Amino acid sequence: MTASAQESISRHYNIFNPSIDSLSRATFHVSAPAARVVSVVGDFDSAPLTLKRDSTGLWSGTTGPLPSELYTYRLVIDSTEFADPANPYQVRDIAGISNMMIVGGGKGDNFMARDVPHGTVSKVWYNSPSMGRERRMTIYTPPGYEASTDSFPVLYLLHGMGGDEDAWNELGRAAHILDNMIADGKAEPMIVVMPNGNGRQWAAPGFTSQGLYQPALELSVADNDQFEKSFNEIVSFVDDRYRTKTDRRHRAIAGLSMGGGHAWKISAMNPDMFDAVALFSAKVGWKGDPNADTNTEEMDIFMKPLLDNPPSYYIMSIGRDDFLLENNREFDDFLNSHDMKHDFVLSEGGHCWRNWRDYLTALLPRLFKDAK
Amino acid sequence: MTASAQESISRHYNIFNPSIDSLSRATFHVSAPAARVVSVVGDFDSAPLTLKRDSTGLWSGTTGPLPSELYTYRLVIDSTEFADPANPYQVRDIAGISNMMIVGGGKGDNFMARDVPHGTVSKVWYNSPSMGRERRMTIYTPPGYEASTDSFPVLYLLHGMGGDEDAWNELGRAAHILDNMIADGKAEPMIVVMPNGNGRQWAAPGFTSQGLYQPALELSVADNDQFEKSFNEIVSFVDDRYRTKTDRRHRAIAGLSMGGGHAWKISAMNPDMFDAVALFSAKVGWKGDPNADTNTEEMDIFMKPLLDNPPSYYIMSIGRDDFLLENNREFDDFLNSHDMKHDFVLSEGGHCWRNWRDYLTALLPRLFKDAK
Repeated sequence: MTASAQESISRHYNIFNPSIDSLSRATFHVSAPAARVVSVVGDFDSAPLTLKRDSTGLWSGTTGPLPSELYTYRLVIDSTEFADPANPYQVRDIAGISNMMIVGGGKGDNFMARDVPHGTVSKVWYNSPSMGRERRMTIYTPPGYEASTDSFPVLYLLHGMGGDEDAWNELGRAAHILDNMIADGKAEPMIVVMPNGNGRQWAAPGFTSQGLYQPALELSVADNDQFEKSFNEIVSFVDDRYRTKTDRRHRAIAGLSMGGGHAWKISAMNPDMFDAVALFSAKVGWKGDPNADTNTEEMDIFMKPLLDNPPSYYIMSIGRDDFLLENNREFDDFLNSHDMKHDFVLSEGGHCWRNWRDYLTALLPRLFKDAK
Repeated sequence: MTASAQESISRHYNIFNPSIDSLSRATFHVSAPAARVVSVVGDFDSAPLTLKRDSTGLWSGTTGPLPSELYTYRLVIDSTEFADPANPYQVRDIAGISNMMIVGGGKGDNFMARDVPHGTVSKVWYNSPSMGRERRMTIYTPPGYEASTDSFPVLYLLHGMGGDEDAWNELGRAAHILDNMIADGKAEPMIVVMPNGNGRQWAAPGFTSQGLYQPALELSVADNDQFEKSFNEIVSFVDDRYRTKTDRRHRAIAGLSMGGGHAWKISAMNPDMFDAVALFSAKVGWKGDPNADTNTEEMDIFMKPLLDNPPSYYIMSIGRDDFLLENNREFDDFLNSHDMKHDFVLSEGGHCWRNWRDYLTALLPRLFKDAK
């Protein structure tokens, strides 16, 4: 074996992807001597990054300078997609595993652990009498919660279709964002409750007696708003188990996509419950819901309790490429026509976690500031 | 496109691996039309399972009947190893990701979620003054803990070299095992504390300000027993934060490999602390430690406090192929020569999680039974 081949083999065993240089360019190496075409597909670029093979079978390629951000990617080897074996930082979205990479030096830093006090993240089971099951949720308690005797405000943070109680903390990096923003004085210390919002699923795949089954999109259209109707059970559980401030001013609800629809409905169904409501790329309104038989008058009726008793802060955030934009425009018009104060924030991009992390980051400083 | 090709494509999109038939044979499908050789390497067989290609580029293969067990595996495609993209149930061991599969109908069921009451699993940070850092641990509280006012016994469960505070719960399935065995009346309800036992690492990769770095084996040989010496800080933290029974009869310690060495040392350094001590494939004794300058007399001195005040239960469990067997035989001889009552259990196999899950399963019924 030549020295160069030996060097190459030793290189192949020491791959860690990506390496990120001082210009924020990410370099990938893939050891795949028999492959014909190797590329990296990720949300750092709309085009795949095609890697080039060297004489030892090591493929490599480098992106251009990347804005500071958390990105996800996969390898495509001869048209089959794989998670990158040289990067163990992975996230699951429904049944698909992607690798994670963070370009620091800017907002990406907000999604990484820093040397700041850390909250506790717990996987907790609660009983839902209305759904007839123990159900799983993720709870974040802020740094200092356990050593304190204070009560804390609560943000209920709801995932989208395809997600579960793990989604906001894994894909959404909720605990990292909270730790960092609380440390920087940008967010009040708060409890964050991330329940499983699927009407017919009671825990993330692998945590039920269904065993290790194939995760699939959990469709909520036919579940008769079971989750929304059961939400008071979650609030009661949280107020019972944790030291919470139980008045309206110390409760907020936010959700993305299907969970944005949940936040919309739950806040209207419980008008005394939340003082801040955030709809991220929300499935708001009944448009596109095959089982809905509703019209403008029904929205009037549904929203009346909240219109009569509006929360202090109500925000809709959505990307200009989002397929739910029209739903959101219509609801924005509805709120305007009923003079309900709210923000409508249009961002770049579409229906994706990159936006939802940003929306959460923008929301947190608005919560519980004046509610001491 | 022919009907058969269409059917094949639709099949390729619906792959979930493995499918396990009624004879406990596992079938794998891999869509890799351009690949030349595809196999599955896993701990279900010492030989790789070579898959066969059909005309559409779908590779498949079936194992023989497998004993009920949790197995891990990877794909090897043209000599490069990948996690299986058709199985999102994955575990990390140091920097490597493997897929997980469970063959039920026997002891494998013990490693799966069942419809039984579930404990809470929390990721908690504690302060270690002696190590100068906040450090991360995993805590299991048993079903009913939060709703109760009772105090509970505590098992300290320590990982091996290459592991961290996530290892026992992820690779070791500790929470599933505890939930199931408590439900079956085979284990007392107990708190299980799984700290990070690496002297120079304070949290699992990705949970520190080091960012998303390449995980590597954390060598403990040069850390001057920092973790062992700091252990009373963990016990104090746990007794302070949780409703624990704080007497010796209600504390146990167990560890695997390096963590077995920790359990050995910590129990000897704190002879009043633990009434049950379990060493799984333990790095017991100073043999093979390049920095140790010790001899038989030193073992006498080191062990004297525990020999004078032996725990009710002391067990060494190790596989007959384990590279640490000689260390364990020597220590077994030492305990015999000093008439310290203990069990020495020799199992099949080597230094692997399959054994450690079994050793934990065998240990739990022995803990805290008579200590009401």
